[in-house]
Amino acid sequence: MKEAKKSIVVMKFGGSSVKDVVCLKRAASRVVSTKKAGHRVVVVVSAPGDMTDELIERAHAITDNPDGRELDMLMATGEQISIALLCLSIKTFGIDAISLTGPQAGIWATDVHTKARITKIFPHKVVKGLNTGKVVVVAGFQGLNPDEEIVTLGRGGSDLTAVALAAALNSEVCDIYTDVDGVYTTDPRIVPDAQKINQISYDAMLELAGAGSQVMQARSIEVAKKFGVKIHVKTSLKNKPGTRIMDEKGMEEPVVSGVAYDKNEARLSVRDVPDQPGVAAKIFSALAKESVNVDMIIQSTAQNGLNEISFTVSRQDLKKALSVLEPIRHKLGAKEVFFDDRVAKLSIIGVGMRSHSGVAAKMFSVLADAGINIEMISTSEIKVACVIKESEGQKAVKLVHKAFGLGK
Amino acid sequence: MKEAKKSIVVMKFGGSSVKDVVCLKRAASRVVSTKKAGHRVVVVVSAPGDMTDELIERAHAITDNPDGRELDMLMATGEQISIALLCLSIKTFGIDAISLTGPQAGIWATDVHTKARITKIFPHKVVKGLNTGKVVVVAGFQGLNPDEEIVTLGRGGSDLTAVALAAALNSEVCDIYTDVDGVYTTDPRIVPDAQKINQISYDAMLELAGAGSQVMQARSIEVAKKFGVKIHVKTSLKNKPGTRIMDEKGMEEPVVSGVAYDKNEARLSVRDVPDQPGVAAKIFSALAKESVNVDMIIQSTAQNGLNEISFTVSRQDLKKALSVLEPIRHKLGAKEVFFDDRVAKLSIIGVGMRSHSGVAAKMFSVLADAGINIEMISTSEIKVACVIKESEGQKAVKLVHKAFGLGK
Repeated sequence: MKEAKKSIVVMKFGGSSVKDVVCLKRAASRVVSTKKAGHRVVVVVSAPGDMTDELIERAHAITDNPDGRELDMLMATGEQISIALLCLSIKTFGIDAISLTGPQAGIWATDVHTKARITKIFPHKVVKGLNTGKVVVVAGFQGLNPDEEIVTLGRGGSDLTAVALAAALNSEVCDIYTDVDGVYTTDPRIVPDAQKINQISYDAMLELAGAGSQVMQARSIEVAKKFGVKIHVKTSLKNKPGTRIMDEKGMEEPVVSGVAYDKNEARLSVRDVPDQPGVAAKIFSALAKESVNVDMIIQSTAQNGLNEISFTVSRQDLKKALSVLEPIRHKLGAKEVFFDDRVAKLSIIGVGMRSHSGVAAKMFSVLADAGINIEMISTSEIKVACVIKESEGQKAVKLVHKAFGLGK
Repeated sequence: MKEAKKSIVVMKFGGSSVKDVVCLKRAASRVVSTKKAGHRVVVVVSAPGDMTDELIERAHAITDNPDGRELDMLMATGEQISIALLCLSIKTFGIDAISLTGPQAGIWATDVHTKARITKIFPHKVVKGLNTGKVVVVAGFQGLNPDEEIVTLGRGGSDLTAVALAAALNSEVCDIYTDVDGVYTTDPRIVPDAQKINQISYDAMLELAGAGSQVMQARSIEVAKKFGVKIHVKTSLKNKPGTRIMDEKGMEEPVVSGVAYDKNEARLSVRDVPDQPGVAAKIFSALAKESVNVDMIIQSTAQNGLNEISFTVSRQDLKKALSVLEPIRHKLGAKEVFFDDRVAKLSIIGVGMRSHSGVAAKMFSVLADAGINIEMISTSEIKVACVIKESEGQKAVKLVHKAFGLGK
């Protein structure tokens, strides 16, 4: 009964944090400290190191196009190995622990193999473990579909398991342990004096993730926002605070929180399209049908009854997009499809923009002063994104990061 | 409906038959041939290559005494990898296949982690797969205990899964694919002209397994005997008949089917024990309590009111046996405990012995003529076993194998 009153903490460790005995012991020691500090602890883990990629390679050595159901059966073993080894490590500290696969932890998902979405969680086995004083270690990235078959949750799936479990258990906080210190104002490999962000709102973090910051996937943050789960992204290597992602209420957030930079972009333009209703719908329906995700879209004002429609896709989708567009261009009577895969997207993000004017203008001036041409612009309430030449990208990141006072 | 009338064949592949892409393709091709020959096919597989041992090593790198529940969670991943990869391989031949973990296949077992026994099988997912025309690939070595936790079945567990599934499904035959051609009259490494046995009865095979022949574990053969499952042990490398293990009715079995040789023996003697009731009970209860398995037992006739009790244990249990015996020897007032760990056990096995006399005498003469001393003798209806010096073992195997006309 005493156990039941303690607050629950969900701790998630990525693959690099459980890849060998040394890492497992270090992760276990963090778990044990949290448990000894008086919390009830649920741990979510990824597959060790590069095991998921290695398993996918083994499948591809057999067939070019492996069946999704069997891939899920295969990939789910990685996390199962991690939960068992981490439990054994925790037990060496004299703390009792129990491992649960995603299905055992009651994680139900949609019937889409290799990229299912979590639909509901029945965590009674987790609660039972906690109520008997144990640390409960759950396999991330996996669940059961309505036919009771194993499915996996796609990229960032273990984060999603952690956040969803934290929501289902009314956990106080969801700690995401990774190999970086937290979320930075920009990529420290480009701007050495980039700073760790102490606090960031769900919305700003969502825009950062969408703009190419790789720390967490957008969908985990969406779930956290929906259920009010406080996230703390921190390193498993050192014992120091990372970045807290939470509701912006009561949070003093700067005008600009960070600068995101994404080189994985390609720009496409369909030129000289007759200005008729339904043209854009035709183009983007066809792309959607082939699962090509479109990011920014701009339609220029008609001149002589002809439009230009420009948009960006990720570079690996470029070839597919071009093959989808060719027959449509012909049907629409458009002159040509132009593409450029040497572009990059630079974004500034900050909740403070809502109440500050002139932020976008400042960004454009900084770029203009440096002679950097802006090819496309897209804005939201808390984001300004520009497409520029990739060759000018790093310089642009440095200038903008400095202009908004984000350096140390 | 047509599918439902076809006979079911269970095929089991060991770890060496699924260890890499080449082996997987070969195993898949055997499965596809059986399917195309008009059977409904259930496949049982072990973990690839040495994966189970490697996983156990990883656990032991963390702790000397890994928890059984977590070891089972860990080890069960090996077979799960095999079923997914074998399904992908089968599908490349254009035959549909579906993988099931032991729990999904409805295999229930006792609550003894790392060495559970199968209690019941509810194979409705297997039957559903077969009824839709699929090959069903089941993970061997694993099941669910009454708490719905993953347990493993100990050594030879995948054979057990195969035989038990064959029984539950009323399968026509259970093919055990391994890296040897079948069961031999004796170890071909010792006697090069040893022959493959074409047919052998459950009872003779049981004695062979008990006497140290490593092809199959005794408990799988016991289950096969109990439910009348015909076993066919054969190689996965070549397409040729192996050894059929079946009911002896209508089978012409020779007087001696094979010669088994087991070097993993140690002999212990408690000397000059006062001849009182209950002495043997005290000794063997104490050994059983410490899980020391005793094989042969001989008590010599009392002389001057003093007995000698001799028995054999496996060599790895010798140290434990000695430590159990020392306090008992003292309490009983026996003079000393003598041991010899350089002995071996030589056995002849054959159902035909039941109706033939003089078989044991012939074996003793052959050994006597060669000057080989017999230290202990134990017999059953269909077996004669002798303990001799290990240094004379190989010579003895050759002589006995020849004397009973087992060579080519």
